[in-house]
Amino acid sequence: MKARIKITLKAGVLDPQGKAIEHALGALGFSGIKDVRQGKYIEVTLAETDEAKAQAQVEKMCEELLANMVIENYSFTLEKD
Amino acid sequence: MKARIKITLKAGVLDPQGKAIEHALGALGFSGIKDVRQGKYIEVTLAETDEAKAQAQVEKMCEELLANMVIENYSFTLEKD
Repeated sequence: MKARIKITLKAGVLDPQGKAIEHALGALGFSGIKDVRQGKYIEVTLAETDEAKAQAQVEKMCEELLANMVIENYSFTLEKD
Repeated sequence: MKARIKITLKAGVLDPQGKAIEHALGALGFSGIKDVRQGKYIEVTLAETDEAKAQAQVEKMCEELLANMVIENYSFTLEKD
């Protein structure tokens, strides 16, 4: 089973990388751009085939390692191989 | 209009960050994990309201700045505000 995990900064947390991208896009001539936020995207292949168990496993992974729950949120989708 | 962009390494490109996550998950006791790949996730808010134009604008952004087309792929979804 494949998990596609998105980790994003919580609203209100400063995002200097996002700001840098926003300025760079402006400098390249793109207009009407705002609120650029950068996060992480992680793909994990799990041996687990039961969807409920895989979901619990990915939640645990996100909370223990992948996301910093103080400043980040996570969301994910699961897909059968 | 909001664009949600995923930038991933092309297949075959080494991903040391993904490998580090895979090892760390193993060390935390997660089993049956493989093929961990880390990419970037970027959210951009566009002033453009026409979907076709927004799509062309995001493609241009990805190719000119956000993704390194030699080693990375991008995909995105657009969502009306």
